[in-house]
Amino acid sequence: MSKARKSCGGKREKSKGSKPVAKEQVGEEKVTFNISKEENFSEWFTEIVKRAELADLRYNVKGFIVFQPWSVLAMEKMYRFLEETLQRKGHKPYWFPTLIPESNFKLEAEHVKGFTPEVFWVTEHGDGEKLSERLALRPTSETAFYKMFSYWIRSYRDLPLKTYQRANVFRYETKATRPFLRSREFYWIEAHCAFASEREAMEQVREDMETTKEVLHDIFGLPFIFFRRPEWDKFAGAVATFAADVLHPDGKVVQQPSTHLLGQNFSKPFNIKFRDRDGREKYVYITCYGPAVSRIFASVIAIHGDDYGLRFPWRIAPLQVIIVPVASEKNEGVIKKALELKEFLLANGIDADVDLSERSVGDKFYYWEMKGVPLRIEIGPRELEQQRLVVFRRDTMSKEEIAEIELLSYIERVSKEIDKNLIEQADKAFENRIVDAKSKNEIAEALDQGKIARCNFCSVSHEGEKCAEVIEKELKARVRGTRLEPEKPDGPCVICGKKASAVVYIAREY
Amino acid sequence: MSKARKSCGGKREKSKGSKPVAKEQVGEEKVTFNISKEENFSEWFTEIVKRAELADLRYNVKGFIVFQPWSVLAMEKMYRFLEETLQRKGHKPYWFPTLIPESNFKLEAEHVKGFTPEVFWVTEHGDGEKLSERLALRPTSETAFYKMFSYWIRSYRDLPLKTYQRANVFRYETKATRPFLRSREFYWIEAHCAFASEREAMEQVREDMETTKEVLHDIFGLPFIFFRRPEWDKFAGAVATFAADVLHPDGKVVQQPSTHLLGQNFSKPFNIKFRDRDGREKYVYITCYGPAVSRIFASVIAIHGDDYGLRFPWRIAPLQVIIVPVASEKNEGVIKKALELKEFLLANGIDADVDLSERSVGDKFYYWEMKGVPLRIEIGPRELEQQRLVVFRRDTMSKEEIAEIELLSYIERVSKEIDKNLIEQADKAFENRIVDAKSKNEIAEALDQGKIARCNFCSVSHEGEKCAEVIEKELKARVRGTRLEPEKPDGPCVICGKKASAVVYIAREY
Repeated sequence: MSKARKSCGGKREKSKGSKPVAKEQVGEEKVTFNISKEENFSEWFTEIVKRAELADLRYNVKGFIVFQPWSVLAMEKMYRFLEETLQRKGHKPYWFPTLIPESNFKLEAEHVKGFTPEVFWVTEHGDGEKLSERLALRPTSETAFYKMFSYWIRSYRDLPLKTYQRANVFRYETKATRPFLRSREFYWIEAHCAFASEREAMEQVREDMETTKEVLHDIFGLPFIFFRRPEWDKFAGAVATFAADVLHPDGKVVQQPSTHLLGQNFSKPFNIKFRDRDGREKYVYITCYGPAVSRIFASVIAIHGDDYGLRFPWRIAPLQVIIVPVASEKNEGVIKKALELKEFLLANGIDADVDLSERSVGDKFYYWEMKGVPLRIEIGPRELEQQRLVVFRRDTMSKEEIAEIELLSYIERVSKEIDKNLIEQADKAFENRIVDAKSKNEIAEALDQGKIARCNFCSVSHEGEKCAEVIEKELKARVRGTRLEPEKPDGPCVICGKKASAVVYIAREY
Repeated sequence: MSKARKSCGGKREKSKGSKPVAKEQVGEEKVTFNISKEENFSEWFTEIVKRAELADLRYNVKGFIVFQPWSVLAMEKMYRFLEETLQRKGHKPYWFPTLIPESNFKLEAEHVKGFTPEVFWVTEHGDGEKLSERLALRPTSETAFYKMFSYWIRSYRDLPLKTYQRANVFRYETKATRPFLRSREFYWIEAHCAFASEREAMEQVREDMETTKEVLHDIFGLPFIFFRRPEWDKFAGAVATFAADVLHPDGKVVQQPSTHLLGQNFSKPFNIKFRDRDGREKYVYITCYGPAVSRIFASVIAIHGDDYGLRFPWRIAPLQVIIVPVASEKNEGVIKKALELKEFLLANGIDADVDLSERSVGDKFYYWEMKGVPLRIEIGPRELEQQRLVVFRRDTMSKEEIAEIELLSYIERVSKEIDKNLIEQADKAFENRIVDAKSKNEIAEALDQGKIARCNFCSVSHEGEKCAEVIEKELKARVRGTRLEPEKPDGPCVICGKKASAVVYIAREY
């Protein structure tokens, strides 16, 4: 039994109302999950994806994976929170075609340049007949949406137009793929909006950032910083790109939702004009926003998991309550009560199930802890008789006993505590992970400690790209950008020593 | 003003509590929708898709359309009912890759023969580099799922395996496309299951039919008959195909969910074996089930709509309640109350909105009737003062006045009545649409009256295919199959005059 496992058992013994379950906890090694997340994050991540059956990587097309029920159920909940929030803020849902004609795709020069290397092309049908035009499997759908925007927008009365779709997109990635983090097909939402003025468009960008906070931080429990990306790292075709970086335990950042001010860069080639109140025809201003649900799920795994496996925030847990009958032999009364409790919880909108498998009780405990179910209810003959329940919290690995009658109010209260606890732990782990660095050595030191370096930098416009290349080459790290409220540099550029015009953040990425 | 419109106005004037709104009802012609669904169904369908903004057909890839918010919101609800039902019956959700390697696709001979003509192929990436293997845009996912089944199934303990995914699929249709009915990309659910015995597999087929009844009939309000398709019309690779036919007002049938007994036809080439309790290795039995949500939506439009536009069953309405302030001039109190009502309804899980547009009150009435919103609440100064509301039911085009305080209990009751009414109307329209036919002439007569012909038929195995071809060629109709409980023929084959072995149903299709 590993050290981690022992400490868990220790906690249990101390926890209020727990009974001696030590014997059952000594399961076969295969049922336990005890990899140090801190010491070997990469192995931990690979292993939990497999063991919790989040995705199967054996599908026989390179870079494509099969998303399994345990991740799909969580991601469907994540979709729902994102979509409800977008709809509440006035976005309307669409389903656009997956295929984009090459002629659309080519209209915006920067966009085609940026995305062409990653496009999968449909060129044939049937027995090999050629299509008259190549069709792109959408890597993103600007060039599909904006074609239609040109039909839909005629007058200022048609604005703002706020749309979105949930969709799967395709990118021929040349970097190594990793489940959830980077696949050749992934699942996201893309929101596209058109406005009469640049001011309103920038307000939308700010609203997107607020949406990111409301959903990714306040519901999914993910801390992040929004950066304005340097000129050389903007979305292909954007005037400005703002992106949320989440820092994983291995010190690598992941770009989670990004929101882009596209200005009139697409409305001109796509000819999206409106007649304004003054009677004049003008091009609209466009924004787009793209939370990648399957990638956000990677951060949910990475940020909340611990050495025993996954931990889920309550509202996105694929299963919220697992009920484990703990009678030493088959006890019909206990099983009946367990099934009644399940139905009772389901009827109250709580995702619950009973584990009636042939596994030992101890193995069941390990299994559902590894799967990250927030609450476990244990019920045996004693609990049945006394109308009490033993409840185990996955986030704190602690048990307590409650009266059966107070179950709902207990869950009501404790589900909020679980989320609060997970968010606080995540926020705390993110604190102090940004350090000032005055030299390449200090940057390297910060990065090696899994931190983000904050530095004075010559320029985030194209003149600074050379220094960024030095960082990329020598430190294997990237300039993530500047804070939204510009910070004043207090010294020369950390790379070239010239006058600094910005304070930038530097981090490693996958 | 059309006859239809007048009769509607007439009903209104008679209805309890209505006020004289005749002036407002005389909107400009453009806002009314008054096409006789019975007399010209095809025009009616085309026009309502456009006018209710269900789909935009101007996307520039042939056969691909843009699904707009009004249909997407309804279809998302339809997905939810289907998915909840499948999950309750033990199916687990997956997301499989959209791309299927040609080598998988080719494994089952009948399947590849049946589907190859309809496949879109991805052959290139980036600047035109060839892929090492052609990848099919999934026209259906048997050959993706079963590849993974061969990894997942080892023992009888792994069975039954009940899976599904919501997905978009692609078929290079050569027939004329029509929005929702037949597109080159459509939205469906595909459920795939594996069992230890053929008996259990057939039970699954029956469960799929029951699911179809529970959801398509009891929630979506669509009447249908399940037929066992003749041998020559089975799903490519199936042992037997069972499919629900919905009869549209123009006398054409649409295949809605089909469920297929695939037997061991796929488990053998995909090598899906399990070790049974007796220690022997056996091939599994497979079933698949495919409710096409975007096509089912076509039937929702077709079956429930009327001369004024769409009508939605309560539970799948994109919007359930539209609140229209009817003050003659801008009345802040009325608008405030309307917005309060909206928030109150939303908080109670009812999708509600207020129409604050600049349209006239009459135009608003026409517009939301055309859009099919089940309930309209009208509130003016008099209602505000008396704490009463005028409520208009779209299904009956009738008004009544209620006390504001009873709004929720009224909606609770009337929403059920609306669904009951729509289902009864649909069932009634389906009654007497099947007629016995003893000759080709009688079949033709039945078909011309928009009915389904019931006939004695030589054989539904391959020997009968010649007679089916006669029907197809001379009557432009198809043999849909036999009832599940076999019926006994009472005369010779209606085509060849030889001894009949089956009673079949013949109908026209799109």
